Amino acid sequence: MDDSTPPPAPIRWPAPASPGDPLSRVDTPALVLDLDAFERNLARMAGFAAQHGLRLRPHAKMHKTPAVALAQMRAGAVGVCCQKASEAEVFVDAGVGDVLITNQVVGAAKLARVAALARRARVGLCFDDAGNVAAAGAAARDAGVVLDAYVEIDVGARRCGVAPGAPASDLAAAIAACRGLRLAGLQAYHGSAQHLREPGARAAASGAAAEAVRQPRAALRAAGLPCDLVTGAGTGSFEFEAASGVWGELQPGSYAFMDADYGRNQCDAPFEHSLTLLTTVMSRGGVADGTAPERIVVDAGLKAHAVDSGPPTVAGDASGAPLPGLRFVKASDEHSVIAVAAGTAAPALGARIRLVPGHIDPTVNLHDWIVCVRGTSVAALWPVAARGALW
Amino acid sequence: MDDSTPPPAPIRWPAPASPGDPLSRVDTPALVLDLDAFERNLARMAGFAAQHGLRLRPHAKMHKTPAVALAQMRAGAVGVCCQKASEAEVFVDAGVGDVLITNQVVGAAKLARVAALARRARVGLCFDDAGNVAAAGAAARDAGVVLDAYVEIDVGARRCGVAPGAPASDLAAAIAACRGLRLAGLQAYHGSAQHLREPGARAAASGAAAEAVRQPRAALRAAGLPCDLVTGAGTGSFEFEAASGVWGELQPGSYAFMDADYGRNQCDAPFEHSLTLLTTVMSRGGVADGTAPERIVVDAGLKAHAVDSGPPTVAGDASGAPLPGLRFVKASDEHSVIAVAAGTAAPALGARIRLVPGHIDPTVNLHDWIVCVRGTSVAALWPVAARGALW
Repeated sequence: MDDSTPPPAPIRWPAPASPGDPLSRVDTPALVLDLDAFERNLARMAGFAAQHGLRLRPHAKMHKTPAVALAQMRAGAVGVCCQKASEAEVFVDAGVGDVLITNQVVGAAKLARVAALARRARVGLCFDDAGNVAAAGAAARDAGVVLDAYVEIDVGARRCGVAPGAPASDLAAAIAACRGLRLAGLQAYHGSAQHLREPGARAAASGAAAEAVRQPRAALRAAGLPCDLVTGAGTGSFEFEAASGVWGELQPGSYAFMDADYGRNQCDAPFEHSLTLLTTVMSRGGVADGTAPERIVVDAGLKAHAVDSGPPTVAGDASGAPLPGLRFVKASDEHSVIAVAAGTAAPALGARIRLVPGHIDPTVNLHDWIVCVRGTSVAALWPVAARGALW
Repeated sequence: MDDSTPPPAPIRWPAPASPGDPLSRVDTPALVLDLDAFERNLARMAGFAAQHGLRLRPHAKMHKTPAVALAQMRAGAVGVCCQKASEAEVFVDAGVGDVLITNQVVGAAKLARVAALARRARVGLCFDDAGNVAAAGAAARDAGVVLDAYVEIDVGARRCGVAPGAPASDLAAAIAACRGLRLAGLQAYHGSAQHLREPGARAAASGAAAEAVRQPRAALRAAGLPCDLVTGAGTGSFEFEAASGVWGELQPGSYAFMDADYGRNQCDAPFEHSLTLLTTVMSRGGVADGTAPERIVVDAGLKAHAVDSGPPTVAGDASGAPLPGLRFVKASDEHSVIAVAAGTAAPALGARIRLVPGHIDPTVNLHDWIVCVRGTSVAALWPVAARGALW
């Protein structure tokens, strides 16, 4: 880390546990990471990338946690992706030397931050607008740096990116002609394809994305423009991207922790749910009054887990033992209601229940700490240092 | 503030603006509070409560912001509500002397925190379990304090709370017999009723809630148990609760800022959308490629605004001027896609767009700062000090 770098700002809240604590002493709600399962997930993905001769650049927008990024790099990752300039700063501060912002960065102030960061790390960003190419080039020249610039192709996600054909070729030519930028390749990520349940549907979407990349890649090469790298892919589709021969770098994020939404994908290469939300039963009012089905309430709602991609699932009790007969019903801001099936004993007040979050990225972003465990003992507390990095 | 109190932990991120800045210099995404509209909302609700002879205890789980709580108290509020022990600590630290935790607090560690807080403020909490009454009483006696204890009645929300009848009476008797607790009244809040669109449906739900409270209130009085106060009500139903003659204290939260979900309620006493999310157009890829309808992308997604209760609406440009023809389509983690109707000029790259968040409580909880403006000039930066207060 550059000596002139200010120290990272402190985490707002004290950690909900201390190393060596038993799980029973962890204050809830808390994100709990099973390190054994996490390390197996990291090894599986790193092994896959190595086996296919592909670069692995995991997406850090998912975990927001420097300790996770550094573990991924020890397992072979070339660097990380992130989505925001402020996220990139956190990871460079933590010692990650190669960060790709897989997103558009707009505005002189943000571009100046990105350029300043490139004085102490390799930094890339994406483009879908010629005016923004000029603005980024000016920021880079002002800072005396060169930024890696990727043309973002809309490969079907209907979000950012330019269309294949003349728009992609014209933008690549603008980048190649812009001092301060180095044309590094193509960004091609199909977000919505990740969550198609059927492997065949994901394969078809990935195949269409590959077609959308082949044309501009060939056009750039024909024009003598460098197109060293196509980067993209996610946890739901990386096997198809790898098989296509088009992508040279994979950007999966969720595989390290997983979530209930990805768990609903039909998948040949499953990863484990290494991260769960530890909660405490705070009400049994619906048991006591004889409601059918009985209901209990745990102490974590919309401010502790994200339901935008569907509900969480009940993972088990504090030690991971399954709790059949319990089913998530609904979340409000600070409560989640869980139904207890007839014939199932309702957990006691104060009992611990682990949930698999519905959507991992916005869930992690709600927490300041990840409680890392081996078995049922707290091994480490990891600050989610890029939590809330919106800029 | 007690001299022994540690100073509040610092906010994680630097503020996205400075006082005196024009709106154009605010880094995005950012929550922007129109102070004029905010103050009108506060005055309207305070005037309503005063006119009906009711106590007003606004819910601070919505705003998480000491400066908002103090403004509400200057406008006549008796104190605030919150949902968590850690939230209560933030507001007491900031000088709020009367806090009601409208929730169950379970576990010896949390109850000890609540009891310690009662050494320097009036603190209340809710119960729906006799075992937890005993645990809270022990914590209060250990700390040498008395906690205000409310029996939470399930008035139809099917979440926490005991049923009217024997469960409520038995729990009230247990509280009255417990040293360290003072039976302060009944908590009666019908969360799901707030968002019924038709005023008649909200009136019916509120009427049923009133019936669910009248019986235990009469039973407690007949048994010689004090039942000084029925407290509850929200922004969607407070007029009905006020008219019932049952409630003595109102707990609305959202009225101060409002959101798109409440905006979809049919309502005779509308409050203004004082808080909006300021965003920047970061992609026009869908305009450039001639997509129909055209689409643009702004720099704020699920990590900057909550869609669990429905989508945000487009409020206007940075200065508040309407932007007809723009319609929110979808959010992903860091992006929101906005459709541009045929015949409407798409905003330029870098243009500012304000959104009215879909659901205000979990949206505010994603931000460390509220940027307060008068017109288009930044007047103050308010830390969201209880952001992330999960415990």
